[in-house]
Amino acid sequence: METRDFLTDFAQMSAYGATAGGGVHREAGTPDDMAVRAWLREVFASLGLTEHQDRIGNQFGLKEYVPGAPYVLVGSHLDSQPMAGKYDGAYGVLAAVHAAQRVMRQIDEGELTPTLNLAVVNWFNEEGSRFTPSMMGSSVYTGKLALQTALATTDRAGISVAEALSAEDVERHDTAPEAASYAEIHIEQGPVLEASGKTIGLVESTWGAKKYQVTITGDQGHTGATPMDRRKDALYGAAKYIVAAREIVDEFPAGVLHTAVSTLELFPNSPVTYAGEVTINLDLRSADTAVLVEAETRLAQQRTKIEQQASVTISQQLTHEWGLMPYQPAGLDLAEKVVRDLGQPFQYVKTVAGHDSTNMKDQVPTVMLFVPSRDGYSHNEKEFTTDDDMLAGVDMLTGVVQRLITGELLD
Amino acid sequence: METRDFLTDFAQMSAYGATAGGGVHREAGTPDDMAVRAWLREVFASLGLTEHQDRIGNQFGLKEYVPGAPYVLVGSHLDSQPMAGKYDGAYGVLAAVHAAQRVMRQIDEGELTPTLNLAVVNWFNEEGSRFTPSMMGSSVYTGKLALQTALATTDRAGISVAEALSAEDVERHDTAPEAASYAEIHIEQGPVLEASGKTIGLVESTWGAKKYQVTITGDQGHTGATPMDRRKDALYGAAKYIVAAREIVDEFPAGVLHTAVSTLELFPNSPVTYAGEVTINLDLRSADTAVLVEAETRLAQQRTKIEQQASVTISQQLTHEWGLMPYQPAGLDLAEKVVRDLGQPFQYVKTVAGHDSTNMKDQVPTVMLFVPSRDGYSHNEKEFTTDDDMLAGVDMLTGVVQRLITGELLD
Repeated sequence: METRDFLTDFAQMSAYGATAGGGVHREAGTPDDMAVRAWLREVFASLGLTEHQDRIGNQFGLKEYVPGAPYVLVGSHLDSQPMAGKYDGAYGVLAAVHAAQRVMRQIDEGELTPTLNLAVVNWFNEEGSRFTPSMMGSSVYTGKLALQTALATTDRAGISVAEALSAEDVERHDTAPEAASYAEIHIEQGPVLEASGKTIGLVESTWGAKKYQVTITGDQGHTGATPMDRRKDALYGAAKYIVAAREIVDEFPAGVLHTAVSTLELFPNSPVTYAGEVTINLDLRSADTAVLVEAETRLAQQRTKIEQQASVTISQQLTHEWGLMPYQPAGLDLAEKVVRDLGQPFQYVKTVAGHDSTNMKDQVPTVMLFVPSRDGYSHNEKEFTTDDDMLAGVDMLTGVVQRLITGELLD
Repeated sequence: METRDFLTDFAQMSAYGATAGGGVHREAGTPDDMAVRAWLREVFASLGLTEHQDRIGNQFGLKEYVPGAPYVLVGSHLDSQPMAGKYDGAYGVLAAVHAAQRVMRQIDEGELTPTLNLAVVNWFNEEGSRFTPSMMGSSVYTGKLALQTALATTDRAGISVAEALSAEDVERHDTAPEAASYAEIHIEQGPVLEASGKTIGLVESTWGAKKYQVTITGDQGHTGATPMDRRKDALYGAAKYIVAAREIVDEFPAGVLHTAVSTLELFPNSPVTYAGEVTINLDLRSADTAVLVEAETRLAQQRTKIEQQASVTISQQLTHEWGLMPYQPAGLDLAEKVVRDLGQPFQYVKTVAGHDSTNMKDQVPTVMLFVPSRDGYSHNEKEFTTDDDMLAGVDMLTGVVQRLITGELLD
C-alpha cells in the first residue's frame, strides 16, 4: 500500500474539469466526471481498495476485513455544479480516502481491530444539475428512487443517465456493499463556522425543504402589435412570482426562511413573440416547519393575485420535500468524543443544503461533519476552505472511522 | 397560364407546418419552410413566373415585360414564428401571387400596358425567431445588413443561415431584381380595423421602436445554503426589471407605449444554483418619440434601483432601432384612389410591428396595406382573418399593382 499525501492528491483531483477561475465544472457523467472517476479508481488500487460499482454508478472502494460483515461507508461525491467550487463533495471523497488509508494502516499494524468492513464511496450525481433529481446515487442506494427511473432520466440534450454511464468501461453490479454506518465530511457552504472561529461542525439536523415546479401559462402574442391590455404574457407573470418568492423572505425574521428560483424555461423564447408558457422551480427552506407552511400559504395568495394582475394561470406542484431531519444523537455523541480528543474548536450546526448523508441517515447510524467555508461561498468558483481546515477535517473523519470500524455506533 | 383559386391555394399553403391548433410552426430555413418554398416554386411555374433567388434566399417570381426595366415588387414572407398563425406574412405572399395572376391576365388580354416588369417576392426570414435579426432578407436586399453577416448568423443549435439555405436545391444569384416600387398586404395584427368596421387599412407610418439586449450579472451560489443577504441572484434582478419594464406602460396614457421582454437565457439554469447571469431582450415601441425617450430615462432609473436592491449589475445595449417612419404620401394617395374605386370601407392606420415594407419604403415608393385581424391576435395560432376580408385584400392589392405596373407612382 502506497502512502498518499492529501494536499498532493487534492491538487491532482482538482485538475479534472478545472476552470480558469479556480473552480471546477464537472457535471455528473460528463467526460471530466468520468476522468476524475478513473483517477479515483487508480487511487483505490494504490491503497488496495477493490473497486465495486452498482448499476447507478456509485463507485465504492472496498476493503474486506470480516467476511460477510457489513461496511462502514465513508465518502461524498465528485460531481459538481456548472462553474462551481472544487471543494463541494470532492473534499469529502478525498478526506474519506485519506481517513481510510490511516485506519487501514492502523489495522495492518495491529493498533485497531475491525469488527466491520470498510468502504470509501463516490456517490453518483449528487448535484442534480445535469440529471434531476439531486442525490441520485444515494437515493437509489437507499431505495428512495427506483433504479430504472434514475437510469431513464435525461439531460437537456436528451442523453439518459444510462447512456452517460455507458461511456465508462467498468463492470457494474446488481448489488452494492451493505452499510453498517455512514460518515461524511463536507464544506459548510455557509458562514457560521467562519464567523464563530470553529474548525469542525457537528451536523445535528437538516433544514426542512419544499421544492416545487411552477408553470405560468399565458397566451403568446406579438411583442409590438398586441395591445398591452390584451396580453397574457407568461414571462411577466413569472417575473412577478419570482420577485414575490424572493421578497417573502423579508416578512419573516432574518435567516429563518431561504427561497430561490434558479431554473427557467420559456416558450417560444422568440424576440418578437412574448411567452405563452414559462416553467420555473421554487425552493423553500427553513429549520421551522411552521415557517414553511406559512410561506407557502402566503405564496398561494400571491399566485392568485398575480394570476389576476398578469392575466395568466399559475399551477404549482410539489416535486420533492423533506422535513426538519435530525441526525442520530449517538452519531453526534461519537463525533463529539472524537473532536474533544483532538482538541479542535467545534460547534453543533444545521445544514441547509441536502447531502448524501441526508439519505443515508434514514437507513443507518450516520455522522455528518463540516469544515469552514470562506465567506459562505458555495456553488461558485470562489468557494474556499484552507488547507489547515481540510487537514483538520481529515483528522476528524479518521477519528470517526476508527470508532465506527470497531462497531462503536452499533452498540 | 393556369387559373388558380385563392382560397384553394390558401388551404394548400397552410398545410406546410400546420399545427393541431389551426396555426403554423414554420420557422425560417426549417424543412417546413423549405417545403412551402418548393410549393411556391410550383405556383410560380404554373403562372409563368420565373424563379430567381438571391444569395440570402429571397425567392422572387419574375415576369419580364420591358427588357432592362426595373420591377414592381409585391410580396411578404412565408416563414412564421413558433406555434403561430397561418395568416402573418403568408397571406401577403399569396395575395401578391393572385394580384400578379390577375394583372398578368389583363396585360395578356391587352387591357393594361406595363411600363415596368413584375415580381412576386417571398422574403427570407422576416420573423427572426430562429435567426436574429428579423426582416433579414429584405435588410440584405436593401443593403442594411451585410450578406456575409446574415449568412453567418446561427440558431441556438449552432446551425448557420448558410447551412440552412444549402438544404434547398436551387440556383442562387449574386444579383436580385431591381425594384421600381413595392407593395405589401398583411393582416393588421391589432384590433383597430375590426373595432372600426373597416376592411382595408392604408398604413401611413410605422411606430418607432427601440430594441435592447440587457445583461443582469450577479454571482451564482447555492439555492439553499447561501444566506439570503449575501446573494447576488441574477434571476431575481432580471425578474424585477421585467416587471418594471412592463409596468412602466401604466405611467403613460393607455395605448401610447408598448413594451415587452420575450427572450431569456440564464446561467447555470441548475436546480440548486441560483443564476449568476441572465440575458433578456427588451422592446420599447411608441408612435411618439418623446415617449420612447422618457420611458428609457425612467427605466434607467429603475435599473439603478434594482442594481442596489438585488446586488446585481445591469448593462443595457441598444441592438436595433427605428424612428417613427412615414410611408410615402404618394403611395397613400394611390392606395386611396384604389380603395375608393373599389368602394371598400377603409381608414389610415399605423403599424406597430415592423414589416419588410419598413425596409423597402426607405428605397422605393411603397404601398402598405392591412386587412382586419380578429381580436387582434398575432403570433398565436388563434390569429384569424375572414375569407371575405382576405379576398377584398386581394382585390385591393390587384388595384394597386395595376397602377404601379404602369409607372403611376414614379411620375
